Amino acid sequence: MQKNKSIGVAIVGGTGYGAGELLRLFTQHPETEVISVISASMAGQKISEQHKYLSSFYKQKFVKEIDFELLKQYKNRVVFLALPHGTSAEVATKLLPRIKECGCFLIDLSGDFRLNNSQIRKQFYPEVVVEDSLQQQFTYGLTELNKEQIKESTLLSTPGCLASACILATAPLIDLGIENTLILDAKTGTSGGGKTLKEIFHHPTRHGNLTPYKILEHRHEPEISQALAGLSPNKTETKLMFVPHIIPTSRGIYVTAYASLQKTLSKRELITHFENFYKDSPFIRIREEAPELQTVVGTNFCDISVTCRGTQVVAMSALDNLVKGTAGQAIQNMNLICNLPETTGLWFPALGPT
Amino acid sequence: MQKNKSIGVAIVGGTGYGAGELLRLFTQHPETEVISVISASMAGQKISEQHKYLSSFYKQKFVKEIDFELLKQYKNRVVFLALPHGTSAEVATKLLPRIKECGCFLIDLSGDFRLNNSQIRKQFYPEVVVEDSLQQQFTYGLTELNKEQIKESTLLSTPGCLASACILATAPLIDLGIENTLILDAKTGTSGGGKTLKEIFHHPTRHGNLTPYKILEHRHEPEISQALAGLSPNKTETKLMFVPHIIPTSRGIYVTAYASLQKTLSKRELITHFENFYKDSPFIRIREEAPELQTVVGTNFCDISVTCRGTQVVAMSALDNLVKGTAGQAIQNMNLICNLPETTGLWFPALGPT
Amino acid sequence: MQKNKSIGVAIVGGTGYGAGELLRLFTQHPETEVISVISASMAGQKISEQHKYLSSFYKQKFVKEIDFELLKQYKNRVVFLALPHGTSAEVATKLLPRIKECGCFLIDLSGDFRLNNSQIRKQFYPEVVVEDSLQQQFTYGLTELNKEQIKESTLLSTPGCLASACILATAPLIDLGIENTLILDAKTGTSGGGKTLKEIFHHPTRHGNLTPYKILEHRHEPEISQALAGLSPNKTETKLMFVPHIIPTSRGIYVTAYASLQKTLSKRELITHFENFYKDSPFIRIREEAPELQTVVGTNFCDISVTCRGTQVVAMSALDNLVKGTAGQAIQNMNLICNLPETTGLWFPALGPT
Amino acid sequence: MQKNKSIGVAIVGGTGYGAGELLRLFTQHPETEVISVISASMAGQKISEQHKYLSSFYKQKFVKEIDFELLKQYKNRVVFLALPHGTSAEVATKLLPRIKECGCFLIDLSGDFRLNNSQIRKQFYPEVVVEDSLQQQFTYGLTELNKEQIKESTLLSTPGCLASACILATAPLIDLGIENTLILDAKTGTSGGGKTLKEIFHHPTRHGNLTPYKILEHRHEPEISQALAGLSPNKTETKLMFVPHIIPTSRGIYVTAYASLQKTLSKRELITHFENFYKDSPFIRIREEAPELQTVVGTNFCDISVTCRGTQVVAMSALDNLVKGTAGQAIQNMNLICNLPETTGLWFPALGPT
Repeated sequence: MQKNKSIGVAIVGGTGYGAGELLRLFTQHPETEVISVISASMAGQKISEQHKYLSSFYKQKFVKEIDFELLKQYKNRVVFLALPHGTSAEVATKLLPRIKECGCFLIDLSGDFRLNNSQIRKQFYPEVVVEDSLQQQFTYGLTELNKEQIKESTLLSTPGCLASACILATAPLIDLGIENTLILDAKTGTSGGGKTLKEIFHHPTRHGNLTPYKILEHRHEPEISQALAGLSPNKTETKLMFVPHIIPTSRGIYVTAYASLQKTLSKRELITHFENFYKDSPFIRIREEAPELQTVVGTNFCDISVTCRGTQVVAMSALDNLVKGTAGQAIQNMNLICNLPETTGLWFPALGPT
Repeated sequence: MQKNKSIGVAIVGGTGYGAGELLRLFTQHPETEVISVISASMAGQKISEQHKYLSSFYKQKFVKEIDFELLKQYKNRVVFLALPHGTSAEVATKLLPRIKECGCFLIDLSGDFRLNNSQIRKQFYPEVVVEDSLQQQFTYGLTELNKEQIKESTLLSTPGCLASACILATAPLIDLGIENTLILDAKTGTSGGGKTLKEIFHHPTRHGNLTPYKILEHRHEPEISQALAGLSPNKTETKLMFVPHIIPTSRGIYVTAYASLQKTLSKRELITHFENFYKDSPFIRIREEAPELQTVVGTNFCDISVTCRGTQVVAMSALDNLVKGTAGQAIQNMNLICNLPETTGLWFPALGPT
Repeated sequence: MQKNKSIGVAIVGGTGYGAGELLRLFTQHPETEVISVISASMAGQKISEQHKYLSSFYKQKFVKEIDFELLKQYKNRVVFLALPHGTSAEVATKLLPRIKECGCFLIDLSGDFRLNNSQIRKQFYPEVVVEDSLQQQFTYGLTELNKEQIKESTLLSTPGCLASACILATAPLIDLGIENTLILDAKTGTSGGGKTLKEIFHHPTRHGNLTPYKILEHRHEPEISQALAGLSPNKTETKLMFVPHIIPTSRGIYVTAYASLQKTLSKRELITHFENFYKDSPFIRIREEAPELQTVVGTNFCDISVTCRGTQVVAMSALDNLVKGTAGQAIQNMNLICNLPETTGLWFPALGPT
Repeated sequence: MQKNKSIGVAIVGGTGYGAGELLRLFTQHPETEVISVISASMAGQKISEQHKYLSSFYKQKFVKEIDFELLKQYKNRVVFLALPHGTSAEVATKLLPRIKECGCFLIDLSGDFRLNNSQIRKQFYPEVVVEDSLQQQFTYGLTELNKEQIKESTLLSTPGCLASACILATAPLIDLGIENTLILDAKTGTSGGGKTLKEIFHHPTRHGNLTPYKILEHRHEPEISQALAGLSPNKTETKLMFVPHIIPTSRGIYVTAYASLQKTLSKRELITHFENFYKDSPFIRIREEAPELQTVVGTNFCDISVTCRGTQVVAMSALDNLVKGTAGQAIQNMNLICNLPETTGLWFPALGPT
């Protein structure tokens, strides 16, 4: 154990894709030591048996409990929750006293703490039982919109992967004035569905196939609404239509957003507006041409472009659901709350031809 | 040669995907004999060397000219043009006298004769040189909208593949009254790009990738406008935004259309409205759940569904770009002009798990 | 019900990929009527809800029992078992009296009746309980090796999909004399794994991946041995090494077989030898160049080629695991036992670009 | 320019996949500065326009000539040739005086300097014109077999990607004594074919397809022979049969090798033998279970396993053709000749679910 590293980390819920991705990214993070990886069901088994691609990087086994004593020896301590929706709120509520006592930051990857309005939360996450007073202590961790608040937080909620892609593509449009309805057509790979076996993610079902799901009913829609309303001068909600589609790849989310603006801008003006909006956001790359999945998969980048015809605007974003959409976003926030440059351990490009 | 078959067919431009698909489908058509397959560049070579999957089905070679004498021995004669945009108009203009003299029907697969407005045609198809008077003799061959007119025609223009999917998904919405802008988000496999090698269709470029193209600039948008205007009581155009995306599969087009209606209908009412609209269309299957590519790939079916939330409506369609989007559509029309049931030779299901 | 069709069919075990493929192929078979599709678990549900691509083709529901009275009204009656290994032998044993009494043919798709040697059968199929005397009444249904015997049979066992591809690629080599060991490297799509959800067939596990399995331990190896020994003049077994690999596609099996022959033949002589061997086999296409999956997927063809360098020989085969490897093979045999041309309802080409 | 980095690098032939991968990997290498990226055809264009995934990492443009003056300011200087076969020998011959004068190491990625026997080289690389005396100055850069010699070299030839996977899987078998013929069945993604557009790499041709190529005629076979003979006590050649197949993915090579040994070992003994053979090779991971592509794609690892049945042995290897098969291997060697740990800049895991 090298205490010369400044951050001790524990991960609760270590077997899923989210945890695997945290572990993968930590292999490249210069300041992080992974102390405890918790799995109730797999305790005692080697991490690298579950996440085979991590052999040579982790010799550890899954354990049942966080080693808070060891965590305390690090300057900064961070507990990540990588648990199913519902379970996360339950575990957070239970662990919080010890987490606070140990001086840990808590970063949750689930949807349990994302929605501020308790009525909407209960509607979309009926399985989540959480006190409003607890939920309100969580900061919504989309760095590009919320950096200063995140820096001051100790409890963070990581945005949904589809929501992140939608919000990042369209946030700069809000102050330009969107007429009528903002259309959000999302395309996502299958890894977003997690490790749980389902017929819809069975390989023969997906090969060469495309399927929309939860049409106008997806949980990320109120999350997008909430974030965009926060950007509106008078906190008004933008009317949305949001449909995600499963495409036959594994990683990556692509969002095509359609809006009519109240005024006409040139493509150049729009690009410049987007560049200004994201000028302090190193992981946002505004591109002249439409982004693609290949330039972001495996990375923490979100590539964005925008084009128009008269008042009609099309904004597009591409990101990796497991990195910028989950684990990378969480680590970006960890960097901020631990006073590191937000790019620490996350500054690497995509594979190119994948 | 079995003159007991009633239709003699010639295909001009025999090497591309469109011609290959015509040839594939004719192997299952009980009334068709393929007489001449024309290729300037490959004349003398075996058809099954170019289309390897057709060995055991075609012993013939590509030839330089249509054997009109042989065609004449069939009760019905049909010439298909499967040529690049621009070339098709040129060849059609040249061949037309002989085609008419021989009493042939002409079915064109290109975009050259689709747009009635010559100014728009010149804008979107600058390479096409065609007399307005000739273009106006062509019937737009989308059977589901135009069946009676097709039956009476001798010159047919086959709709664009993306346009077909967009029009079929949204045609029933027109008389319900669409507010503001109709959004058409299309996803297409790579075979729509044809056989010509391009970097954007290079396998390492496409694997796990998604790329939109010709954003708000695609040639099929005016074609969709024209078709939808034709359905409008007062022939008004619907405002459109149309963006096609290349997804990492080979066959299949999926369209997600977003509209706001002037009135509120239930999902049940919408489904019923769609079922009525397509009650005489055997290849349209209105589904309760969202369609998928797997249930249509390889077939002439277009699966459609529609759902809503208040006045917000999402209509979806799925079809095979080479079948219902090109060759199958062309044969469906051939059946009609030759007085056969429109399903002749086209009534087979998809592979299921592909 | 059109009694003008000559074959009445019942399928026991109607929900899996094998049954779905039988049902798909029967839509194109001119002499077959599907009478009863049995599913214990789904009785009462529509067939087309389970096999969505078959809507417009089957209005029927799954039922609990075969309607033998209705079957009897057909000139020929065939019961297909599309059940899991083990279950099939159990059901066959139970149903056989009624099947015989009704004058039905029985065609089993499982592995339960493939291995003649009871000791080897028990070793590789420990879950199968079957009387030797019953097993010996079944004919091994690989048409290309066994046509005359099949025609005279009433009980048929359908070969394994991987075994079929291996046997067809190498059968012509046996009488040329194989030195040492015959190597069989097989590549298979995921649909061969069936509909049961498994981590190895989860889409994110398979995308861009390749995994061998049951290395030197696969059940199809003794089946291949048995079939090749049957071709040997003195019934000697050929030493084998057989490794199947899962490739990231859904349909198709490709086998590359490596052998050293006792004598040197030219490529031309080998091709001619293969052509002669399969001269009465319409679904075997001997190709000059290496076969590919795209030319066989969806069809009942098995494409084969062979090349050499001195005494070293490489033989390759490609087929669709669900068609020639399962349901198509079963129907080919049904045609023979019902005195129809073996190509009836199976004579169609692949999609080409898929 | 930070001269505190110890290695200055120039890349000749900057537009292909090999160069792109060098550039990608150098973004993570702590001791390397990329000085000049040469492209005759693209000089003046931004590197990140050609390799879009590298934007944010390279601001530079392609140039026409190596800036040797700048290179000289670095403690170590390395010139990489990432050129087509044939061109590389020509350029190397021309550049060599300046390279030597500048004290640069030269690392070639092409096949031009791999084969020591000039007759075999001329047979398999007829386009390569190279003096034998020059070729013999190049060290064959497969680190795992050749580490000490590489450390002392100034001119390095990078092994072929398929050859690397074959050699690494089977090298430990040589001193166990292979009977008869060693069978090497390779499966490769499409990126191995490079950026040049070809019909065989057109996406619709490859989707769901599998095609073997250059059966028993591939250039990597003599390279494998040469390397394995070098491991044999008496330098005898092992008889080989080598067939590569293109599978429908982009990155990754999988080799299944089949051998009969002169003696019988247990699986445990074989695994231990392999572990000992590679005990100083950090990028070789000997696995109990069969390796998979997903655990190596994007990385410099080669995962290997071996199993047996009596004297029959199956050895398997998996690697990324562009990393361990090309650019990563080249950098691993660069590390060695520059006295860095061989893992420098290359120690990262695969993406897991890809």
